[in-house]
Amino acid sequence: MHRLILWILLLAGIGFWSRPGVAEDGYQLWLRYVRIEDEALRQRYLQQFRALHLEATSPTLEIVQEELRRGLQGLLGTSIPSVDRVEEGVLLVGTPASCPTVAALGLEAELQALGDEGFLLRTMTVEGHRATVLAAASDVGVLYGAFHLLRLLQTHRPIDSLNVREAPRVRLRVLNHWDNLDRTVERGYAGFSLWDWFKLPDYIDPRYRDYARANASLGINGTVLTNVNADARVLLPEFLEKVAALADIFRPYGIRVYLTARFSAPIEIGGLDTADPLDPDVRAWWREKVAEIYRYIPDFGGFLVKANSEGQPGPQDYGRTHADGANMLAEALAPYGGVVMWRAFVYAPEAEDRVKQAYDEFVPLDGQFRENVLIQVKNGPLDFQPREPFHPLFGAMPRTPLMMEFQITKEYLGFSTHLAYLGTLWEEVLQADTYARGEGSTVARVIDGSLFGRELTGMAGVANIGTDRNWCGSIFDQANWYAFGRLAWNPDLRADSIAEEWIRMTFTNDPRFVAPVKQMMLESREAVVNYMTPLGLAHLMGPGHHYGPAPWFDQAPRPDWNNTYYHRADTLGIGFDRTATGSNAVAQYFSPLREIFGSLERCPEKYLLWFHHVPWDYRMRSGRTLWEELVDHYYQGVETVRRWQSLWKSLRAFVDPERFEQIATFLRIQEKEAVWWRDACVLYFQTFSRRPIPAGYEQPAHTLDYYIELQRKLQRFPMPGHWVGR
Amino acid sequence: MHRLILWILLLAGIGFWSRPGVAEDGYQLWLRYVRIEDEALRQRYLQQFRALHLEATSPTLEIVQEELRRGLQGLLGTSIPSVDRVEEGVLLVGTPASCPTVAALGLEAELQALGDEGFLLRTMTVEGHRATVLAAASDVGVLYGAFHLLRLLQTHRPIDSLNVREAPRVRLRVLNHWDNLDRTVERGYAGFSLWDWFKLPDYIDPRYRDYARANASLGINGTVLTNVNADARVLLPEFLEKVAALADIFRPYGIRVYLTARFSAPIEIGGLDTADPLDPDVRAWWREKVAEIYRYIPDFGGFLVKANSEGQPGPQDYGRTHADGANMLAEALAPYGGVVMWRAFVYAPEAEDRVKQAYDEFVPLDGQFRENVLIQVKNGPLDFQPREPFHPLFGAMPRTPLMMEFQITKEYLGFSTHLAYLGTLWEEVLQADTYARGEGSTVARVIDGSLFGRELTGMAGVANIGTDRNWCGSIFDQANWYAFGRLAWNPDLRADSIAEEWIRMTFTNDPRFVAPVKQMMLESREAVVNYMTPLGLAHLMGPGHHYGPAPWFDQAPRPDWNNTYYHRADTLGIGFDRTATGSNAVAQYFSPLREIFGSLERCPEKYLLWFHHVPWDYRMRSGRTLWEELVDHYYQGVETVRRWQSLWKSLRAFVDPERFEQIATFLRIQEKEAVWWRDACVLYFQTFSRRPIPAGYEQPAHTLDYYIELQRKLQRFPMPGHWVGR
Repeated sequence: MHRLILWILLLAGIGFWSRPGVAEDGYQLWLRYVRIEDEALRQRYLQQFRALHLEATSPTLEIVQEELRRGLQGLLGTSIPSVDRVEEGVLLVGTPASCPTVAALGLEAELQALGDEGFLLRTMTVEGHRATVLAAASDVGVLYGAFHLLRLLQTHRPIDSLNVREAPRVRLRVLNHWDNLDRTVERGYAGFSLWDWFKLPDYIDPRYRDYARANASLGINGTVLTNVNADARVLLPEFLEKVAALADIFRPYGIRVYLTARFSAPIEIGGLDTADPLDPDVRAWWREKVAEIYRYIPDFGGFLVKANSEGQPGPQDYGRTHADGANMLAEALAPYGGVVMWRAFVYAPEAEDRVKQAYDEFVPLDGQFRENVLIQVKNGPLDFQPREPFHPLFGAMPRTPLMMEFQITKEYLGFSTHLAYLGTLWEEVLQADTYARGEGSTVARVIDGSLFGRELTGMAGVANIGTDRNWCGSIFDQANWYAFGRLAWNPDLRADSIAEEWIRMTFTNDPRFVAPVKQMMLESREAVVNYMTPLGLAHLMGPGHHYGPAPWFDQAPRPDWNNTYYHRADTLGIGFDRTATGSNAVAQYFSPLREIFGSLERCPEKYLLWFHHVPWDYRMRSGRTLWEELVDHYYQGVETVRRWQSLWKSLRAFVDPERFEQIATFLRIQEKEAVWWRDACVLYFQTFSRRPIPAGYEQPAHTLDYYIELQRKLQRFPMPGHWVGR
Repeated sequence: MHRLILWILLLAGIGFWSRPGVAEDGYQLWLRYVRIEDEALRQRYLQQFRALHLEATSPTLEIVQEELRRGLQGLLGTSIPSVDRVEEGVLLVGTPASCPTVAALGLEAELQALGDEGFLLRTMTVEGHRATVLAAASDVGVLYGAFHLLRLLQTHRPIDSLNVREAPRVRLRVLNHWDNLDRTVERGYAGFSLWDWFKLPDYIDPRYRDYARANASLGINGTVLTNVNADARVLLPEFLEKVAALADIFRPYGIRVYLTARFSAPIEIGGLDTADPLDPDVRAWWREKVAEIYRYIPDFGGFLVKANSEGQPGPQDYGRTHADGANMLAEALAPYGGVVMWRAFVYAPEAEDRVKQAYDEFVPLDGQFRENVLIQVKNGPLDFQPREPFHPLFGAMPRTPLMMEFQITKEYLGFSTHLAYLGTLWEEVLQADTYARGEGSTVARVIDGSLFGRELTGMAGVANIGTDRNWCGSIFDQANWYAFGRLAWNPDLRADSIAEEWIRMTFTNDPRFVAPVKQMMLESREAVVNYMTPLGLAHLMGPGHHYGPAPWFDQAPRPDWNNTYYHRADTLGIGFDRTATGSNAVAQYFSPLREIFGSLERCPEKYLLWFHHVPWDYRMRSGRTLWEELVDHYYQGVETVRRWQSLWKSLRAFVDPERFEQIATFLRIQEKEAVWWRDACVLYFQTFSRRPIPAGYEQPAHTLDYYIELQRKLQRFPMPGHWVGR
């Protein structure tokens, strides 16, 4: 009879957790909290957490309580009783201010050292009882610690002798939403903007909270709500009251809102006839506007600005510098603790080499920015390509806070239907050595401030989030949101371990699934590089929408928007000579990098055509000629995706049918488009190399003209995330 | 011990059905299938359905099987075993072709009489056993019957002696999506278009099936995928393969796809220099284009066309008639069984009275259209206003199939945040007597073909469906989708009973909830009429976006786009004189309507200012002056919404928190905007009436200038569903 009851309980459990009729649509992200199947492990965890002691004295601590309740109940399959005093196996959660028991632990010095957002997670004896302590100096630190603890359980880590001390290495960890006020999203491939401006501020979509929760689970503490190609209208009171409603929702999750400031706003909505940053009326207008914003949003984060770039207005329109422009805004924000994030993504059509311009413009301004200005620098000097060398500005402005700008949305890496885990790309950049202060001067140390002793630090990620049910357009793109958040917390984390965490939380801890899927993710960005832009090539995408290959494109209104500008293929060879015989962009790097990059022999082959124009018959390290090597990379890219397809099929048993099918479909799309990329590029470059595709490779199914016509046709159609200029 | 087991089973059941962590977000629409709480009733149903006999010999019957499995398991809390022969209490489902047992029942004649889409649902003895038979001549008839049966259970109807014979009264029951190819939706207030053209045809969003299923549950059998302000590019092969993928999904649900045909497509994508419908090359181009479409979609439904209206191209551009244009397309479609739905929504700026024009243009063409042409007529002669008299074309074209066009999306009734159940509006129109063949010649009888003996009949609804999780932007707007489908099936159904069905299926069968909520719904459209456009007023909305009041608006590029054109208020009175002393639009109605509408005394007061210019001191039936009556209607509208708010608060116990809160918020928005409407209109009309707001009414909180400025400001901002012309 007892066995019967157990059997019934088991069925009940299955009923409880299988959620009939509720598809695994990806909405839960990495916060699924499914019951731990390993019964022994579940029992060990239950032993550890017999009761919860938490005094929810603030909205943030209420969120912590709810998250722990939800997480532990989900993972452990039973609710943990709340207690109001210490007992054996208690989980003790709080700050010295929220909880006298925590205050009595004597941890204050340690907690102070961990700062405003850090936390401590420790197995210790409290009042004679074995306890797990989650403590922090601030409520939001407790929140981060709660997500950390739940992550340990989600990934089946031991928790019986915890001694975790964590604090974020970067101060501003922000998403950049390129969302327009009409809810279109520039370079967004996951539907439309989450911000329903029309219904705000009256209606608060429950999804706003879910968004904040997901970000808080990673430690993301800021969000720029609007597109860098900015619309001044968001600064009008009619919009500020809507922004304030979002800020109110995000605040208890530790998230501040920022806005993009259109530099010409004083003209467009202020009624002035100039936006000159040295004009007293303009300065007064911004001061008053900022004061107004802080009346709506007392903890407003500040402005992100794209100025004098791709048609955006800026201080140079008035003969002023970027420093003049940034400092004017910074001065207005300073009394309230706000910051200016000023983008270094600037280039003009007349320059000899686009990738040199940001360095040339910004390095002379080092030291001229107010202390609440950060310069936001894309990871590479061009524009979020599948691979670029790191931006030479990193290390070159020791007196200025440089923040990293990564692009989470995959504008140049296959939109949302190609699997491309960006953790490896970002790790490659962050671990690159700038040699700015000798060996070990990694980009990560520029970003976290340790290299030049900077306090104000930041990392931005251009969001890949939209109204699609799964948030990011695909399940695997959720991993890029996740990886960005984790790296912003700690830029020295490894792509490998981040991927593993994410897989375990998002799918399963079963090693038969984790190992192969992690392998797929870790090689995925390289596969995209291979079938799109191998060996240092860049910017071969369809014009405007950036969908599919168009290496032949040379009809742009300015030379640096042509794809031929970047690959410079001719009958002699291919690649952009950036050595001393060419644009000498290599000189922007510190020694020994400038010598390594500048040397045809020493330059890493992955950057070869970025820095060198190389003869078609140049002998590569493999022994193949450059042409053969180039072709081989394109074919390797396709082969990798094909291998994934059969691999994924073999994993069906580990995944729910909904997510399994969607991923299988997207892999088919990726294969189709990888072949398109490969064939179009190989056929096009072949018109210069005049060499055959070596024997043993499958021949392209179409002619080059077919691919040119296909791309021409695509120009006629609406595309997701298409450039929306104004 | 048995009690313990029962108790555990009960808990298991609760666990099973309460779906922890899954919010009631409205995605399930009226197909929620929650377990019946009334245990006695559930037992009676279980007695009735002890087993299911269904041979799923087609994709449609597989869908039936899955729906019955899902529905019965949900409602009854247990799965019904499938059996392969008749036994006591069997539910026997199929067609004579799919199932020999059904074939042996001798129902063929009855089923034939019910037609291709009808079904029969009957309690009878089969092979000596008590059985419930669901039978139809076609698979899709079975599908409709399955949803009918589940609806009986969802609404707690007795099913022990069923004798249902149902067949749709209207042949084409179609949604019109005003969806653009860039996924914006004209007049869409529920997010963006469901059709993810970029990912189609490769990726099939599971939501496409859910969309088809919801439509099939109502008997909707067609969908026009694209905006009537049409984009010719949807006719290119690159899009047709995407349309075909949708058609493949919809087909087993009995749904055909239609497209909007841009009249100038032969020029824009065909390379011709004319679109003249009598030009042989143009005719050949359309023939070939249609042949191409049918190669992609063998059961393509046909075209919906907006021509020579609001800037759209059409046959009149070439001196041809609407009949010339429609017949050209109809000729191309005829060999494949396709139809043309040609809109009668035409008007030109120069005419003396916009509402007369469709009649004047189309009545002379009666009898000139090919037999596969339907003329699609909006319910009223103006444009989907909160109230209009029925369109005088109904009854006036006896030799032409006229189909109804209702607008489900609430362009003029408060978008998705105002509660306005449209069942009552549509019932008012359908039950209106045209007197075309004497008394009893209702609009419903024009639409269902019975008045003039027409075979080809149709009803179109401009969809209110988008990417919002709840499909329609609000829960109550789901009722309008529902009501449209039910009325398209049977135009003589009553708004009251449809509302009751919907409430029971969407929320609960508890009479303490059903009765008050039904009351709210039934009075809701009248409330909107009251606070927006009472007593026959029309078109007082903000220009362009149609959000909020702007009765003063008179700056349009053409007179008939000014709001002053419609209300004609002056110091003497208000209203549009459409009697013989005015535009004489009354003459377009049959006697005795023309006399009734034309008489100040006999005209129903709800249409008074539509047909008459009436002095401010005119004595109304209430004894009040017109001015007093007008004011009173505006205040009544607000009072009704206020009453709903407290009513809704009292119903909290019957609704899940997610839907309760959303509805409560939307009612607050509705109240706020109702006050805005009331005060702006009363203050504006007061400038003409020069009479005070009678004592006892609360005074407006702002001046008229405030409201004028507010509307002027709104013109600056992006609005959902804003007109997207091209």
